[in-house]
Amino acid sequence: MKVSIIGATGYTGAELVKILLKHPQVEIETITSQSFANKKISEIYPWLNTDLVCQELNIDKIALSSSFIFAALPHQTSMKIIGELYLKREKIIDLSADFRFTDPLIYEEWYGIPHQKRELLKKAVYGLPELYREKIREACLVANPGCYPTSSILALAPLVNNDIIKENSIIIDAKSGVTGAGRALSLATHFPEVNENVRAYQVKGHRHTPEIEEQLSKLAKRKIIITFVPHLMPINRGILSTCYAALKQKTDTNDLLKLYQDFYKEEPFVEILPRGKFPQTKEVLNSNRCRIGITVNERTGKAIIISAIDNLSKGAATQAVQNMNIMCGFEETMGLV
Amino acid sequence: MKVSIIGATGYTGAELVKILLKHPQVEIETITSQSFANKKISEIYPWLNTDLVCQELNIDKIALSSSFIFAALPHQTSMKIIGELYLKREKIIDLSADFRFTDPLIYEEWYGIPHQKRELLKKAVYGLPELYREKIREACLVANPGCYPTSSILALAPLVNNDIIKENSIIIDAKSGVTGAGRALSLATHFPEVNENVRAYQVKGHRHTPEIEEQLSKLAKRKIIITFVPHLMPINRGILSTCYAALKQKTDTNDLLKLYQDFYKEEPFVEILPRGKFPQTKEVLNSNRCRIGITVNERTGKAIIISAIDNLSKGAATQAVQNMNIMCGFEETMGLV
Amino acid sequence: MKVSIIGATGYTGAELVKILLKHPQVEIETITSQSFANKKISEIYPWLNTDLVCQELNIDKIALSSSFIFAALPHQTSMKIIGELYLKREKIIDLSADFRFTDPLIYEEWYGIPHQKRELLKKAVYGLPELYREKIREACLVANPGCYPTSSILALAPLVNNDIIKENSIIIDAKSGVTGAGRALSLATHFPEVNENVRAYQVKGHRHTPEIEEQLSKLAKRKIIITFVPHLMPINRGILSTCYAALKQKTDTNDLLKLYQDFYKEEPFVEILPRGKFPQTKEVLNSNRCRIGITVNERTGKAIIISAIDNLSKGAATQAVQNMNIMCGFEETMGLV
Amino acid sequence: MKVSIIGATGYTGAELVKILLKHPQVEIETITSQSFANKKISEIYPWLNTDLVCQELNIDKIALSSSFIFAALPHQTSMKIIGELYLKREKIIDLSADFRFTDPLIYEEWYGIPHQKRELLKKAVYGLPELYREKIREACLVANPGCYPTSSILALAPLVNNDIIKENSIIIDAKSGVTGAGRALSLATHFPEVNENVRAYQVKGHRHTPEIEEQLSKLAKRKIIITFVPHLMPINRGILSTCYAALKQKTDTNDLLKLYQDFYKEEPFVEILPRGKFPQTKEVLNSNRCRIGITVNERTGKAIIISAIDNLSKGAATQAVQNMNIMCGFEETMGLV
Repeated sequence: MKVSIIGATGYTGAELVKILLKHPQVEIETITSQSFANKKISEIYPWLNTDLVCQELNIDKIALSSSFIFAALPHQTSMKIIGELYLKREKIIDLSADFRFTDPLIYEEWYGIPHQKRELLKKAVYGLPELYREKIREACLVANPGCYPTSSILALAPLVNNDIIKENSIIIDAKSGVTGAGRALSLATHFPEVNENVRAYQVKGHRHTPEIEEQLSKLAKRKIIITFVPHLMPINRGILSTCYAALKQKTDTNDLLKLYQDFYKEEPFVEILPRGKFPQTKEVLNSNRCRIGITVNERTGKAIIISAIDNLSKGAATQAVQNMNIMCGFEETMGLV
Repeated sequence: MKVSIIGATGYTGAELVKILLKHPQVEIETITSQSFANKKISEIYPWLNTDLVCQELNIDKIALSSSFIFAALPHQTSMKIIGELYLKREKIIDLSADFRFTDPLIYEEWYGIPHQKRELLKKAVYGLPELYREKIREACLVANPGCYPTSSILALAPLVNNDIIKENSIIIDAKSGVTGAGRALSLATHFPEVNENVRAYQVKGHRHTPEIEEQLSKLAKRKIIITFVPHLMPINRGILSTCYAALKQKTDTNDLLKLYQDFYKEEPFVEILPRGKFPQTKEVLNSNRCRIGITVNERTGKAIIISAIDNLSKGAATQAVQNMNIMCGFEETMGLV
Repeated sequence: MKVSIIGATGYTGAELVKILLKHPQVEIETITSQSFANKKISEIYPWLNTDLVCQELNIDKIALSSSFIFAALPHQTSMKIIGELYLKREKIIDLSADFRFTDPLIYEEWYGIPHQKRELLKKAVYGLPELYREKIREACLVANPGCYPTSSILALAPLVNNDIIKENSIIIDAKSGVTGAGRALSLATHFPEVNENVRAYQVKGHRHTPEIEEQLSKLAKRKIIITFVPHLMPINRGILSTCYAALKQKTDTNDLLKLYQDFYKEEPFVEILPRGKFPQTKEVLNSNRCRIGITVNERTGKAIIISAIDNLSKGAATQAVQNMNIMCGFEETMGLV
Repeated sequence: MKVSIIGATGYTGAELVKILLKHPQVEIETITSQSFANKKISEIYPWLNTDLVCQELNIDKIALSSSFIFAALPHQTSMKIIGELYLKREKIIDLSADFRFTDPLIYEEWYGIPHQKRELLKKAVYGLPELYREKIREACLVANPGCYPTSSILALAPLVNNDIIKENSIIIDAKSGVTGAGRALSLATHFPEVNENVRAYQVKGHRHTPEIEEQLSKLAKRKIIITFVPHLMPINRGILSTCYAALKQKTDTNDLLKLYQDFYKEEPFVEILPRGKFPQTKEVLNSNRCRIGITVNERTGKAIIISAIDNLSKGAATQAVQNMNIMCGFEETMGLV
């Protein structure tokens, strides 16, 4: 199958190229890049063992030549390009935030721009296979989840789905590596500013908040609101989300473990750790796995759920490939670890 | 004034030596070390610009020759030595956990050993100057607070003191550098296991939990319980504590800012950041300062308080020197930044 | 083909398990570990997606059940075990230093212990495929090179082989990640001692010196001596070797580039970078590649050759698999990137 | 004494502010910043405990109000401003490269721009106190040395001054932290590009090469050329320079140690380590010290000299303060550690 990647030279795009080069069922047809057109991608990322040359984006050409398209573009830019591509009826996965919301007003409130392809929001399926596998199978357009939402929703889904936690008690304290901020330069990601330092950011409201809330609310079948604070860690890759919620009634760790094991029992990429074990980000580096550790603090009646993913893998590129596998009828784990 | 340091070659002890060498009112009389007796401390820590030689501990001798003593020993070891020293009526600051609790049963429950100097617990003053300055001034034995408790209590004191948060709603998600674990070797602090990695530890219950609870309870004049989860960061020094609590009634960020500014208005080492600003650990590196950022998440009614300290400074050595300054009638900020 | 790994729970052993699990032609039969017998290796290294359980070493059993054996043991321990295994005529790759030298006296001088299997030294082939591919093909026992020697010899082989550098002018300034020191605890690899720090070590003579000298001498057909200084970097993986040598006569960068391109023109894992480009360790992370950048400093007449490898990959585990591929008649690049 | 700092918001300028705030003999009069005019410097660097506000540069005003001026500007910009200031006869220390060379042609060749204040080159004194203390005492304009030159010249001065090494045999392999590249954004200093990575840069010729050569040549009283390769390390601060040179005749480590101890015997900030000891960058962090370790590799007849400094301290800001102390007749070590 011929696949193309629009926006291949960001960290996520390059990760996609790396994974797809080794995928047994696909051949990369075209990769595009605005900043590096006509350059080999291996000049920018020497570990990519390929002669692929970045092209300028030509929507007609890419739609004709490719059976499957990934877009790894900034939000707002993505919206417009996906809108045009969609008319040409390809299978598409969008890795931006532009099609992750059902309600355009929420998007507009948090992203501060009008949504210009509202009609497509209804067609797009939220690409978290653990929740939407069947819909993804039929989808033409999949909105790949954000990195924080992937780690947070997987950590909290069994709790909200089973309606065992108190209203408005969810707190997500998330810690991310710096690639999550992308390859664009900023003082906040200048080496001496990040190294030997830990800080919270966007404390008053990060854009992944409504994305997490929408998905948890669908699971709960009622409105869920959360308190979400992201932190920047001096590491390249990885997200650790420490999630807290007040349990409605006395529940012990074993009860919760059983709940999670049941919820995820068929999932190839979600691992529930045994009692007393908690995940570390290094354990999921370069893999599509999400590892989850669980405990109940019986003194305070709080569930503490800790999840670890690689933000560029299960939080972006490999999750997109997992979605592609589902959309195309390949084995879901193909090309993934 | 002649001061001595028992246990000078751990990270905290060496930090104390560094600070005291520059303190205008003190002269270091004796430093002891079990592991490095008869070695110059500058062989172990070359940045210490001194010819001081580590001695084996001789309690009688050190009591005679010193007007002021710091003990930077492991808990349990400290208890016995402080017990003997105390009889000789010195001014002492203990940096271990052994005299931080009023109730020996709590100590015994969390530390798993019997407390052999219960009678001294009543004499010891908890060395957090922002709460106990007057008692510290009169004290003979000060129990220097733990690093996590210092950052957590300073972050939460105005909330609990003013009784504006809901029962059992406090969550402290703390992130620490590796020196907090000391200089003893363990796989958990082996470089390749920490670097490029983030993890929680002692999720089911860290020993600093009851220390924080005791102090917050005293402030609140009722029993406070907390949910506390520490995390290990790949940095040497620094603690960032992100604290969450549910507000009893509608309160906005400005209300909270005012509350904090008032509570700490006379404090030389606590800084309340302006609205919209939050601290980073690098901002307090090598200083006795605690920087605190505050916001109210109005959607969820949660107060979010973030504090940053240097775990070896305000979390240990410089706080001990601040206590010494108070106990000895020196200017409180002397020798500190 | 059934392969076994003796000493699977060190960093190198675990890396071998990771690579071999994905190798299309092999099945891992037995893994042994002295420290973790009867534990699943995935408990120690959760990213190893396998149910393999560590066994205690039983030489007879492992020889019977396996067609190919890797030993990733400390030197001295390895010698004895390889000695016994060899009698049972398996194909073996030893990743220790014990069989890397032709002359036992050199080994004994630098490693400070008697060599107890001198007769095997003659049988062992030095496992650097770029120099000894044909001998490796026929070998029963391959001594996998050290990490520093791999990066240094590949950087310098074309120079000494073509006899264009002055006697005793080679200087190798090597920088390594911390996994090169293994998983055993030491103050030198305690996180706060390595992080935010750079230092040289074993400046007066590192054991890899004679290994590099022996191989370069064979290539030069005369005795070569080198000045080699290793440095510890605050990274997990990677070696950058900056090599300097005085050119016998006026040579420009293009001459040297051509020489290197010719020397390595058939090599799948050695890349000579274009003029003006130099390698970075991150470019070879998790890969069997060695990237080499070349320049002539015409003002001083020095060749500057910089090579980058991953110390656990081309410097250990993946090079061992490359050797296995050659010994077993598989495609040399099979299972490797 | 009233001092001012032109260009106070780069890493070096801020370090100067930090040191001068604690200096007992000076008061900071004016700090200037092009990018942050009218902002408190403590907003940019919260660890600066001061209310100083950045001003736009007004040369007349600053010349009038200040008795001493530091300029921490980019090269080329500095030239012009120092030129104007000098006419007003202040004592000035320039931290740029613009006045470090005697010969303007060398400057122009390596910096690629014409030198517009050639007449001032003759007045400027190279601010390395260990070599030029007496001239600095009389100077009106001191050119503060580069960071690499400081570490390299101190490491090599005794060798070239005593004429005991072979012509054209000096190799300097230097490793620097990232603050050496300043605060300006670039992909090369973007966190994910530096972290977990080691690389050489400007291998074909770094601008500090001629600066080192000029100073070593003056010491040797003949033309010295060197091979200098800088490397970027994933740390914030520190330079480790590993220097190699071929000894003219048989010399042992003790001979060399004695030579160095004699050469630096009066120096308060240069420490020659005992036989077998070598410096680490962490040992000189935040200090004006240069630590030097020495050995002779007797097998190859090479001297190996390793020096460690903090690039922002002895490599920039504290060395400037040391120079100020000398120029103003203060105790040379005042305000420095």
